Amino acid sequence: MADPVAVFPTEEFDRRRAALQAGMAEHGLDALLLTGAADIFYVTGFLTRFWESPARPWFVILPARGAAVAVIPEIGRLLMSHCSVGEIRNWPAPDPSDDGVTLLAGTLSDLVPETGNIGLPMGLETSLRMPLADYHRVVTAIAPRCFVDATEVVQRVREIKSEAEIAKIRTICGIADRAFDRVPAIVANDPRLDAVFRGFQSVLLEEGADWVSYTAGGAGQGGYGDVISPAAPVLLRSGDVLMLDTGAVKDGYFCDFDRNYAIGLPSDDVRRAHAALFSATETVLEQLRPGMTARELHAMLTRDLIARGAVPGGGRLGHGLGVTLTEWPSFTDRDKTVLRENMVLTLEPSVEIAPGKILVHEEDIVLRAGGPELLTRRCPADLPVIMP
Amino acid sequence: MADPVAVFPTEEFDRRRAALQAGMAEHGLDALLLTGAADIFYVTGFLTRFWESPARPWFVILPARGAAVAVIPEIGRLLMSHCSVGEIRNWPAPDPSDDGVTLLAGTLSDLVPETGNIGLPMGLETSLRMPLADYHRVVTAIAPRCFVDATEVVQRVREIKSEAEIAKIRTICGIADRAFDRVPAIVANDPRLDAVFRGFQSVLLEEGADWVSYTAGGAGQGGYGDVISPAAPVLLRSGDVLMLDTGAVKDGYFCDFDRNYAIGLPSDDVRRAHAALFSATETVLEQLRPGMTARELHAMLTRDLIARGAVPGGGRLGHGLGVTLTEWPSFTDRDKTVLRENMVLTLEPSVEIAPGKILVHEEDIVLRAGGPELLTRRCPADLPVIMP
Repeated sequence: MADPVAVFPTEEFDRRRAALQAGMAEHGLDALLLTGAADIFYVTGFLTRFWESPARPWFVILPARGAAVAVIPEIGRLLMSHCSVGEIRNWPAPDPSDDGVTLLAGTLSDLVPETGNIGLPMGLETSLRMPLADYHRVVTAIAPRCFVDATEVVQRVREIKSEAEIAKIRTICGIADRAFDRVPAIVANDPRLDAVFRGFQSVLLEEGADWVSYTAGGAGQGGYGDVISPAAPVLLRSGDVLMLDTGAVKDGYFCDFDRNYAIGLPSDDVRRAHAALFSATETVLEQLRPGMTARELHAMLTRDLIARGAVPGGGRLGHGLGVTLTEWPSFTDRDKTVLRENMVLTLEPSVEIAPGKILVHEEDIVLRAGGPELLTRRCPADLPVIMP
Repeated sequence: MADPVAVFPTEEFDRRRAALQAGMAEHGLDALLLTGAADIFYVTGFLTRFWESPARPWFVILPARGAAVAVIPEIGRLLMSHCSVGEIRNWPAPDPSDDGVTLLAGTLSDLVPETGNIGLPMGLETSLRMPLADYHRVVTAIAPRCFVDATEVVQRVREIKSEAEIAKIRTICGIADRAFDRVPAIVANDPRLDAVFRGFQSVLLEEGADWVSYTAGGAGQGGYGDVISPAAPVLLRSGDVLMLDTGAVKDGYFCDFDRNYAIGLPSDDVRRAHAALFSATETVLEQLRPGMTARELHAMLTRDLIARGAVPGGGRLGHGLGVTLTEWPSFTDRDKTVLRENMVLTLEPSVEIAPGKILVHEEDIVLRAGGPELLTRRCPADLPVIMP
């Protein structure tokens, strides 16, 4: 077969393992159990779209010292053998009578002393990717060892990106930049919203995305209603604002940003809203520094929007970015996470132009010691116009 | 905004709700709690790619009688308001101090008597899409109400497809059929494996897929090593067998099938392997009937492969298909699920040509009273050849 894709050199995974094991030591964890695609990719380099199948659970255990141990379905053995793991243990999944439970419990018992704590991400933005009934079986089988929350350990490491990771995100942002340039041609080719969504995904692939995990957007007269609905087969018409948002993927890393286009000349309300979003983002690009918190960034954006007479959107105004489409923290008035050097973040201010009509603006940055560095090509100050 | 996509008429969701509530009554469940994209789409029609963001949990509760209740982040209110639900309750997610826990627990307490059982899918092929620590908080908050496994209730309903669902799956299979026809042109345009993967996804979109959630495949001399690795930037060369497998999506429904292509004339071993796979599938297309079990179908495939001197692959040889890329049951020697009329299934025999070299063949069918009806255009009896 073709050699599998090696996304990073071995040293990158050595660094990640060491950082996680340092955090584990600090929190008194004897092992870390990972079940999700992003965490497992992060620790081992195991990259596959096969996660789309909910049939089988996958487990990676990081002991207090040494290499990770994979406890996975047989179908993943070959690919995992090229990844950054020590031992690989397999079972013939799916097995309705015992789908890896005995093998996982046995492996945890081998690696962790009886009095040990096993970290498992259980907090905000995490979920356990295995059947809940099987988790309860494992809990019983490994007692008196117990699971404790390891969200803090995983998130404090994953949120700081290496230069190698930043380069990956810059690459996929550049791919999406070029795809956004082609949107006027896509609309000219077929101005139905669903066709535009399809065409936009095609050009992302043509420009070099490995796959397109997320495309959303909206279109409506003088603003759109939301940013998560699928595209209907409706014709774009003069007065619409079209927004496209994408999470395209290259080597397992996401971009996440949007662009707006006026179909025909935009109204003054739309122009003003766009100018307010552009200005609020400029303010953050100039003033954000490591050490500020997520809620301070949220306040900075809302202050600037309000100063320009705009009504800030109610949701979060940006978030982390990396091996998933969105990562913590969230730019809300409730998130006290400290923003640190080499976090990759999206700035995503939104405004309500009128009831049920919003405009959302998004850029991707890496936070450097001296302030934000753009990973996306800055959107134009004036809303681009596509003549229908 | 554009009207959201209404995938089915209201009656389809009424039918589903009635079927689930009948199963719930049989199992003594006072409500059903759903947290995953597929189950929530199935019950309400809520279709969005926003699930790609792990930031927020989403909940739909189906009471013993009446309409479903959605307990969801504010960002989903507009789209959910067009779906098949009664009440919608919102909170401003993500909220690090209480991310829907109080609202969910309160809603369950409103809908379920104190002595009640709340069904939650906890079994094979399920997972709980919410933070585990928050689940434990809900368990405490709603006591003495308790959660019990509802995998059986959900799976016995979801696995039988309506004619409307079958039509959706037939449509996306047709889209992929046309995309597979264009593979020789894709290879001629750029014969690197990663470029072929990208080009194949583009033509799936051009042929009408809404998005492409899954593309996998492999290429290697005289067979490939596995079917889940991402594509490397290697040139296809004479003697390779190229396999492409896709889970493309239309209106929330998946296809899942593959096609093989010989690059240059195939060896006798490859021809024989392909013939064995074709023959085993023919046998199932002729002989499979409702009432047989998943393991009997597995035995039928392996018997036929062995009779032709082939070595059957070790994994499952097919599975269910619908609102996820793969659904239960699994065609293994361990799965005793009874195959019933109007199940949509994939037949996926594989053979080992030599150590580390496999060939996999896949078709999608709906099981009718009289036997299988193909949803894919049958793959050619002779392996198609692409001259390099």
